Amino acid sequence: ILTKHLHIGVVGAAFEKGQSKKGTSLGPKVIRDSSVLKNLKDLGHQIEDFGDLTESNVQIDKVNHFKVKNWHEVASYNKSVSDKVFQICQSNRKVLTLGGDHSIGAGTVHGHLTAYPDSCVIWVDAHADINTVKSTPSGNMHGMPLSFVLKELQDEPSSPEWNWVKNRLSAKNLAFIGLRDVDPEERKIIHELGICSLSMEEVDLMGIKEAVRFALNMIDPLHRRPLHVSFDVDALDPVEAPSTGTTVRGGLTLREGMTLLETVNTTGRLSALDIVEVNPAIGNSEQVGQTVEAARRLVLAAFGNSRQGNS
Amino acid sequence: ILTKHLHIGVVGAAFEKGQSKKGTSLGPKVIRDSSVLKNLKDLGHQIEDFGDLTESNVQIDKVNHFKVKNWHEVASYNKSVSDKVFQICQSNRKVLTLGGDHSIGAGTVHGHLTAYPDSCVIWVDAHADINTVKSTPSGNMHGMPLSFVLKELQDEPSSPEWNWVKNRLSAKNLAFIGLRDVDPEERKIIHELGICSLSMEEVDLMGIKEAVRFALNMIDPLHRRPLHVSFDVDALDPVEAPSTGTTVRGGLTLREGMTLLETVNTTGRLSALDIVEVNPAIGNSEQVGQTVEAARRLVLAAFGNSRQGNS
Amino acid sequence: ILTKHLHIGVVGAAFEKGQSKKGTSLGPKVIRDSSVLKNLKDLGHQIEDFGDLTESNVQIDKVNHFKVKNWHEVASYNKSVSDKVFQICQSNRKVLTLGGDHSIGAGTVHGHLTAYPDSCVIWVDAHADINTVKSTPSGNMHGMPLSFVLKELQDEPSSPEWNWVKNRLSAKNLAFIGLRDVDPEERKIIHELGICSLSMEEVDLMGIKEAVRFALNMIDPLHRRPLHVSFDVDALDPVEAPSTGTTVRGGLTLREGMTLLETVNTTGRLSALDIVEVNPAIGNSEQVGQTVEAARRLVLAAFGNSRQGNS
Ligand SMILES: [Mn+2]
Ligand SMILES: [Mn+2]
Ligand SMILES: [Mn+2]
Ligand SMILES: [Mn+2]
Ligand SMILES: [Mn+2]
Ligand SMILES: [Mn+2]
Repeated sequence: ILTKHLHIGVVGAAFEKGQSKKGTSLGPKVIRDSSVLKNLKDLGHQIEDFGDLTESNVQIDKVNHFKVKNWHEVASYNKSVSDKVFQICQSNRKVLTLGGDHSIGAGTVHGHLTAYPDSCVIWVDAHADINTVKSTPSGNMHGMPLSFVLKELQDEPSSPEWNWVKNRLSAKNLAFIGLRDVDPEERKIIHELGICSLSMEEVDLMGIKEAVRFALNMIDPLHRRPLHVSFDVDALDPVEAPSTGTTVRGGLTLREGMTLLETVNTTGRLSALDIVEVNPAIGNSEQVGQTVEAARRLVLAAFGNSRQGNS
Repeated sequence: ILTKHLHIGVVGAAFEKGQSKKGTSLGPKVIRDSSVLKNLKDLGHQIEDFGDLTESNVQIDKVNHFKVKNWHEVASYNKSVSDKVFQICQSNRKVLTLGGDHSIGAGTVHGHLTAYPDSCVIWVDAHADINTVKSTPSGNMHGMPLSFVLKELQDEPSSPEWNWVKNRLSAKNLAFIGLRDVDPEERKIIHELGICSLSMEEVDLMGIKEAVRFALNMIDPLHRRPLHVSFDVDALDPVEAPSTGTTVRGGLTLREGMTLLETVNTTGRLSALDIVEVNPAIGNSEQVGQTVEAARRLVLAAFGNSRQGNS
Repeated sequence: ILTKHLHIGVVGAAFEKGQSKKGTSLGPKVIRDSSVLKNLKDLGHQIEDFGDLTESNVQIDKVNHFKVKNWHEVASYNKSVSDKVFQICQSNRKVLTLGGDHSIGAGTVHGHLTAYPDSCVIWVDAHADINTVKSTPSGNMHGMPLSFVLKELQDEPSSPEWNWVKNRLSAKNLAFIGLRDVDPEERKIIHELGICSLSMEEVDLMGIKEAVRFALNMIDPLHRRPLHVSFDVDALDPVEAPSTGTTVRGGLTLREGMTLLETVNTTGRLSALDIVEVNPAIGNSEQVGQTVEAARRLVLAAFGNSRQGNS
């Protein structure tokens, strides 16, 4: 495998209001504190770090948006994420977004899709994150980002806070890998929209290698679209990545996560990667270290690092 | 996978005299305290909980039965297990038996076989549990249950305590999955009777999916017999299920255990399931929680829960 | 699988000067303290334990050998390892060498190759251990043993300390399994010499069973050469074998390690096995126990133990 020398723009989405646990906004810091950006440079890539996106002050009206929490803040932050991701794409760079909770995935998908209208998304997660404002059982928006950017879920006019969303993903260009905790309403949506979903059940039957290939074939049969992988570290098993807010047993091994991203890398079409939901406030320091190290290895796997060594 | 709506009878075999560690009889309680029966209802099943079987007072003569421990108590309790399992089958329900130590497997196999004379058994375990009164190295009867219910092992007239056993399983209708600690005498029995055994060695070579299919083909080539799975949680790796009395390294992952039971579930012929050897007195509370959660997920996998979500 | 009754000579390479962590020289002791030699006897083998090799006093000149540490001691100890391994081979026994750090692999390869000039080597390791005196980043000789015994790496006359090396392995008769932390200079050497390397990346794509078969076909297409497996326990994942000096995430499971060695065993041509880098001074007693138990199971897997039981 030849490692191409890429231009990569890095942005930290230091945001945690899509869920209730303190510490998720520190994800970008602890991932940067690993040697990951230096490691990417050592692979021959050119790295431009755009720093962390700050939250702007948002005017909050007191209207309830069903039971959704932090409606305005999440919408506003996602707009800035989308703008930044778009801008990085326009500068002809690949995008590496470090979360932060997964609510910011609405912004990364939208920004990337605005730059590349034919792009596809692989959502690697224990959860489907596709609840709507009506179906969400918890009101936590990190379980909802896909509902804002999927074409088929916009049966009602969007609220003013989200009217910056101009481009939306077709369900046929989205695939899930790693699901194992899916709400009944989410299951209905996935089934009705015919979204390609390779849960841990399918991963166990096919193996991760075939699962990734199948997903790639489903969302992009001609193998020519730009690819966006949004990787929630809770897709990994809690043994491999304990410091995250909503762990579920029976997840991907780190080896499977790396194989997934190495396989995507070999397509030569990976254009955007999110690594989200690392929360250094969960677990002891060893567990945090494990989780950050897992995140680091995932990033390197996605951008051409070979377990055979690089020379 | 369509989840059929089943009628399931649950019985607790709160018994621990088949081995020497205190706490195994609390297995039914801690498994029930997980939300498993509610979860089964949420899947659409009708659940009838028949409570725990109590031990009757047994008259104990002082005759030694070789070096076997608690000979009378185990025999007597197994009769009540068998009667209850038979009764649940007669009421046209599937049977879920929560152990307790694995000595109670003699009773579950006998009760189920009495109701369904053509039934087959998959014994999922690190151990073969097929020692006879003569071969047992330890005298613990949880290592012997199969010897009482296998047709081919009854070369001598049975003792009075076990003369309630009227129906016996043919060796050709039994398969092992997960073995990795098999006594030399057990190995001889398995070899001589030609029992289908897929040890961890075969699981590693074939993968769990093929191992289960192979076992199903061997014990029931025409795919029409009722199936009984007797699942010892020590079949799982100690990392996944630490709170059990006789752990052995190199076991099934929880994902493999779930895949095994999901595969059996898809046959539509699972008729009885035992989950045994959870011992909440072993390990710290986190380890007990892990083990109980593993047991819960195994039960749900067996009865149609999908990792894709259920709607 | 029939277990052949073998004559096995055991030697302890209680040496730790190929790296900097105290305790590695206690590996032979703690592995012997497990029941492994008795277990081998129970499998029907004849075991001769030749004890531990002691370090001779070596005259140390003060000339620097680039930045390599303990140049004279490592060279001298390896000569005694080589002599002993050769002697055991001459007595018509298989060789089991218990390390000690992996620098002693130069001696085991040389001794075995001297007895069997057509022998092949499978090096199971997280690391390639093929740095030269010029390329070594650390100066630790446990990262260099292969450079002394590979034919293709002797472009310069060997130094006096290593002039006892008379026989060398061809690169085409060497295969790596399990690599995942390879220095850039090592990668160049592997690539230039065309050494068969099945890193964790390939293990994840092929599965361990196919990886071993592929390695065996590459190094010995006619399937008739004596085989030497040099197994660094850091090839295993740190979760399985934590007590070793240079752990790397994403390693072999113990099950994969056992499958690897069971597969080699079934060739009937395993002639020498090294188990190295167990360090009982690293980690707590539970972790040391885990690591030693892993080493014990690897040895048994290599010499015919069946997870189906032995009779
Ligand atoms: Mn997510
Ligand atoms: Mn998630
Ligand atoms: Mn059992
Ligand atoms: Mn057992
Ligand atoms: Mn090594
Ligand atoms: Mn190593």
